Amino acid sequence: MYRTKTCGELRISNVNETVTLAGWVQTVRNIGHLVFIDLRDRYGITQLSLSRDGHAEVFELAGKLGREYVIQVTGRVTERTSKNANIPTGEIELLIDQLTILNEAETPPFTIENESDGGEELRMKYRYLDIRRPLLRDVLITRATMIRAMREYLDSKNFIEVETPNLIKSTPEGARDFLVPSRMQHGTFYALPQSPQILKQLLMVAGMDRYYQVVKCYRDEDFRGDRQPEFTQLDCEMSFVDQEDIFENFSGMVKHVFKKTKNIDLPDFIRLTYADALKYYGSDKPDLRFECKIVELNEALPKSEFPVFNNAIAAGNLVAGVNAKGCAAYTRKQLDELTEFVKASHRGLSGLVNIKFNEDGTVKSSVDKFYTEEQLKEIGKAMGAQKGDLLLIAAEKASKVRKSLGDLRLELAKRENWIAPGSWSVFWVVDFPLFEKDEETGEINFVHHPFCSPHPEDLQYFDSDPLRVRAQTYDMVMNGNEILSGSIRIHQRDLQNRVFNKLGLTEEEINHKFGFMLNAFRYGAPPHGGCAFGVDRWVMLMTGGETIRDSMAFPKASNGRDLMMDAPATVDPKQLEELGVAIIKKD
Amino acid sequence: MYRTKTCGELRISNVNETVTLAGWVQTVRNIGHLVFIDLRDRYGITQLSLSRDGHAEVFELAGKLGREYVIQVTGRVTERTSKNANIPTGEIELLIDQLTILNEAETPPFTIENESDGGEELRMKYRYLDIRRPLLRDVLITRATMIRAMREYLDSKNFIEVETPNLIKSTPEGARDFLVPSRMQHGTFYALPQSPQILKQLLMVAGMDRYYQVVKCYRDEDFRGDRQPEFTQLDCEMSFVDQEDIFENFSGMVKHVFKKTKNIDLPDFIRLTYADALKYYGSDKPDLRFECKIVELNEALPKSEFPVFNNAIAAGNLVAGVNAKGCAAYTRKQLDELTEFVKASHRGLSGLVNIKFNEDGTVKSSVDKFYTEEQLKEIGKAMGAQKGDLLLIAAEKASKVRKSLGDLRLELAKRENWIAPGSWSVFWVVDFPLFEKDEETGEINFVHHPFCSPHPEDLQYFDSDPLRVRAQTYDMVMNGNEILSGSIRIHQRDLQNRVFNKLGLTEEEINHKFGFMLNAFRYGAPPHGGCAFGVDRWVMLMTGGETIRDSMAFPKASNGRDLMMDAPATVDPKQLEELGVAIIKKD
Repeated sequence: MYRTKTCGELRISNVNETVTLAGWVQTVRNIGHLVFIDLRDRYGITQLSLSRDGHAEVFELAGKLGREYVIQVTGRVTERTSKNANIPTGEIELLIDQLTILNEAETPPFTIENESDGGEELRMKYRYLDIRRPLLRDVLITRATMIRAMREYLDSKNFIEVETPNLIKSTPEGARDFLVPSRMQHGTFYALPQSPQILKQLLMVAGMDRYYQVVKCYRDEDFRGDRQPEFTQLDCEMSFVDQEDIFENFSGMVKHVFKKTKNIDLPDFIRLTYADALKYYGSDKPDLRFECKIVELNEALPKSEFPVFNNAIAAGNLVAGVNAKGCAAYTRKQLDELTEFVKASHRGLSGLVNIKFNEDGTVKSSVDKFYTEEQLKEIGKAMGAQKGDLLLIAAEKASKVRKSLGDLRLELAKRENWIAPGSWSVFWVVDFPLFEKDEETGEINFVHHPFCSPHPEDLQYFDSDPLRVRAQTYDMVMNGNEILSGSIRIHQRDLQNRVFNKLGLTEEEINHKFGFMLNAFRYGAPPHGGCAFGVDRWVMLMTGGETIRDSMAFPKASNGRDLMMDAPATVDPKQLEELGVAIIKKD
Repeated sequence: MYRTKTCGELRISNVNETVTLAGWVQTVRNIGHLVFIDLRDRYGITQLSLSRDGHAEVFELAGKLGREYVIQVTGRVTERTSKNANIPTGEIELLIDQLTILNEAETPPFTIENESDGGEELRMKYRYLDIRRPLLRDVLITRATMIRAMREYLDSKNFIEVETPNLIKSTPEGARDFLVPSRMQHGTFYALPQSPQILKQLLMVAGMDRYYQVVKCYRDEDFRGDRQPEFTQLDCEMSFVDQEDIFENFSGMVKHVFKKTKNIDLPDFIRLTYADALKYYGSDKPDLRFECKIVELNEALPKSEFPVFNNAIAAGNLVAGVNAKGCAAYTRKQLDELTEFVKASHRGLSGLVNIKFNEDGTVKSSVDKFYTEEQLKEIGKAMGAQKGDLLLIAAEKASKVRKSLGDLRLELAKRENWIAPGSWSVFWVVDFPLFEKDEETGEINFVHHPFCSPHPEDLQYFDSDPLRVRAQTYDMVMNGNEILSGSIRIHQRDLQNRVFNKLGLTEEEINHKFGFMLNAFRYGAPPHGGCAFGVDRWVMLMTGGETIRDSMAFPKASNGRDLMMDAPATVDPKQLEELGVAIIKKD
C-alpha cells in the first residue's frame, strides 16, 4: 500500500488526519526554512509543506527533488493560512514528516501544464508525458465516461455487445483496406475491417436482435482532413425496427450521454430533410447553433436589367443569399475577404453581390446601377433585412451557390462570434437520396452503401426516376459535424437485386462482391437497421478539441506515423520470408 | 414498429391482451383445422395457434410457412389447455388472426436446435445460423453479461478504460507478430499488438493510475491446442500498488462477475506458491476441485532392495505417488491404460508402481517381491490410503514425475467423476521464479517477461543464485485453467538494467528491443503492476464450452481460416502494388 489517500480528495474535514500520498512533483518552492511541494496524481494536486525544524533529514532529501520526481509522503492534514479557491484541495495542506523518493525524473522535454511550451509533434513523441497534462488526462476520462454512458443506455435497452473479428476478408467496397499477410497460406491476406457492417447485419440474420460494439475500424486513406487510420465507432444494429424506432432509441442514448457526462438536458432533436438542409444551409451537416439561413431569390427578385441574375435564372441556376446580421459596416477589405473566400477553388463562385442596410436607413449595394432603392428594399424584405444588416448574394449553379453560401454562413459565424459558448445543436438529417448521378460519367451510384433500403412510398419511381427515390438513411449532426450515420437495410433479396441492377452490376459482380452476405439472406433475414457513431469526433466535440487526435490516447501523426513508438518500421527480413511476401524494390 | 412484445415475455397475466410478435418459425404443426406455430426470437419461444374458422385467408398463408420463415403475427393471448412447464411462456398461447410473411427462408443446412445435426465445420460456415441455436446465443449473452460485470466493478474502483492503438511497432519479443504493410511508407510495417503490455505501462508513466481495456490481441502462432489468432483480453494496470492490492482488487472483481453472471458467491481465494503447486499437483495451474495430492516419498519409503526406488533416490530423483481413492478394484487393463498414459512421449515416465488396498483388507502390489505387507502399509499410511484405495507411484526425474502425476490426477478425476458438476476452484498461484534455465542451452531466460519485478527479499540472491529469485508474478487459476497472468513491474532503471544484464543482453540489444520504453521510464515512472485476463477462456469455463471457439461469435477454424467469410483470401494485385509488396513465388 503506497498511499492511503489520493492527491485530489483531502478537504477541510480531513484536518488532523495522518495520511500517506504518492504522486509526481509538480513544483517545489524553497523559502529558506520551509519547502512547499505541489504533489500531483490523476485525481488532483495537494500542497505539501515541510519545515526544517525537527525534520532535517527529510528537509535535506526534499532539496533533491526535481519536477516529475515520483515521491511518497506521510504527514498530517492542516488548514492552510492562505487558501487556494481554484482547486478542491485548496483549503488544506499536508505537513509532511516522511518522504520517500520512489523514482527520479529527468527534466521533461516540455512543461507538464495545460499551457505547455511543447509543440504538437514533440508532445506526440512523448505522449506519455503529454497525458500527464490535466487537459489531455481529462479528455481520456471524459471519453471513458461517455462510452460508459453509451453502454449503460444500450444495456438497459437489451442490446448485446458482441465482438466481431478484426482479421476478415478484404471487400472491394469503400475505402482502401489494410491488409495482413497470412503465414499459414502464402499469397492470401486478411483485411482489417473498415467497419463491421456486414458482420452486424449477419448478427441480425443470426437473431441477436439488438447488437452494439465499441469497435476499432481501419481505413487506409490519405490523410486529407481530420482522419486517422484507426478510429473508434459505436456500431449498432436492431431487428424488427423502422426509422422511428431508431430515432427514438438513439436520440435517447445521446441525451443520456449528455446528461451523464455534462449534466446537460438536450431538447428533443428536430429532423431536417436532406433537401432542406441543402436548401437552407448549403450542407448536409449544417451547424444550427446560429440562424442565418440561405434565402432563395429566383422568385422574389424585382425586375431589373442586371445581367448576372437574369442570365442565371434563364439558365435554370440559383440566385440566393445570406443575411449577415449586423455586418452592414463591413469595410471594403472585409467584403473582399468574403468574396475571396467564396471564390476559393473548392467553392468556385465568381463573386458576391452585396447590399448594405445601413444604420442610418440608407441602402448601398454593389448593384446600385441596376436596382432602385425600393427594389433593394424589396430584396431586403425577402431576406429579413433590418438596419445594420449586410446581404450577400450569389447567382450560379445551385450546387455551387449552396456549398459556397453554406460555408460563408460558417465563416460569418466565426468572424461575428454568433455561436454562444457551450451551446449545442443536435438533430437528425433524413431522407437522403438513394442514388446519385456521377457528374462526370453519368453513372448512377449509391449515396451510402448498397444495402440501404429505399423509402417504400418512393418505390414507384424506382425505374422511371431513380434519382427521386429517397433512402431510409439518416445522419445525426452535432454542432455541424456528422457523428452518426445509418440506415434501414434491405432485407428482401428481390429488392436487393433490383438495387444492384440499377447500379449496373452483373450477376457475377454481385456474387463476387456480396455473395457470401446474400447467401446468408436466403435463410430468413429479419427487417433490420442500424447506425454507427464516430466516437472520436463526438468525444472531440464534448471536450472542446480541434482534431480527433485530441480525443485519443495514442493518435497517429498526419502521415500515419506513430511518433512515440516510431511505427511503421522496417522488420526482420526473416519475418517477411515467413509470410511469403517481399518488398518491391523501386527502380 | 414490428412488434409490441417479444417471444419471451408473455405470461398468464397477459391473457386477453392483443399483441403483435415477430420472429422465426421454429416449427409448424398442422392438425386439420388448426395450425400450431412455435415462434422464436432472441428472447424465447411463443406458441401461436390459428384455427381455420373465420380466418381462411390467414390459415392458407400459414400453410406456406416453412422452418425459419420470418413472420409477424397479431392475436390475443389465451391460456393454454395443455401447458408446457419447460418454457417461461408455456402457460399461454397466441390465437392469431393476422399473419405477415416478412421474409421467406430456404431450408437451413442443419437443424436450428441445441442438439443440431450439423458438424462443427458446417456450423462454422453458416455461423449466422449456428448463433440462432439457443446454446450459442446464450453463450454470447453470458459473455456480454460477464464483460459488463467486469467493467462495472472496475469503473466503481476508479479504473479508466483507455483504448490503445492496434497499428503499432513490431517487437521482437514473444510470439510472432501479424504485420500490416504501410502504403504511405513502402518497406515498413505496422504490427498488430500481441498485448498492450508496453502501452499500458506507458499509461502508468502517463499518470493514468488505474487503466483497463477489453481488447483484441493478436498472435501469429501455429494452432497447437486451443488458440485463436485473435483473442480478447481484459487488460489492467495500476499504479502505486503492491501484490496485495492486486490480489484484493481482482479477487473482488472475479467474485463480482460470478455473482452477477451466475449468482454464485465464491469463497475467498487461497494462494498457492508456484513451488507448492508443482510439488502437490505437478502443475502451475492445478485443478483443485478435487483433492488427490501428489505425495513425495523419498523420506518416507521403508528400507527395501527395490532397485527402481533406491536408484532414483541415490540419483537425486523423486519418488512420489498419488492415492487414487476407491480405485483398488481397477483391472489389469485399467492399470495398463494408466501406465500407457504416463508413458506418453510428452510425459515420458517409464512405468508406475501400484499398491492396492483391497476392500477385504488385503494389500496387493506390483512390488510385492520387494516390500512386506507391513512396509506397504507404511507407504499407505504416508499416502493416506484406506480400504479400497489404489496407490500409483513413480520414481524418476522430479520434473517428469510431477508433470506425469499431475496429469494422472486429472485423468483419474475424469475417469472417476471426482469433479462435482457446477463446482468451482479459483485461486492465486504466486511466487513464480524470475528466471529459468534453458535445459538445452543452459542460458538464463525470464519466465514471464523482462519487466517483472523480483521479490525484494530475494534480491540478495540475484548474483549468487539467480534461479532462487522469486518474481512478483502471479496467475489466477480457475478449474485448472490459467485465466489471469500478471506481475508487479520493475519501475527503476537500475534494477531493469541488472535484469537485462543477467539475461545476457548487450546495451545495443537492450536499446533496440526496449529503448523506447526505457526512455519513457526516465521521466518518473511510478511503482506499478497489473494483469491480463483471458476473456475467451473464462467465458468458455462459465458457459461449459470445450474450446474457446465456443465462446466467440465468429471464431477461426484450426487452420486460421474464417470458414464463413472465406478469409484469408487472395487480393487484387493492384492492392499489393499500392502497398509495395509482392508475393514470393515458390519454385
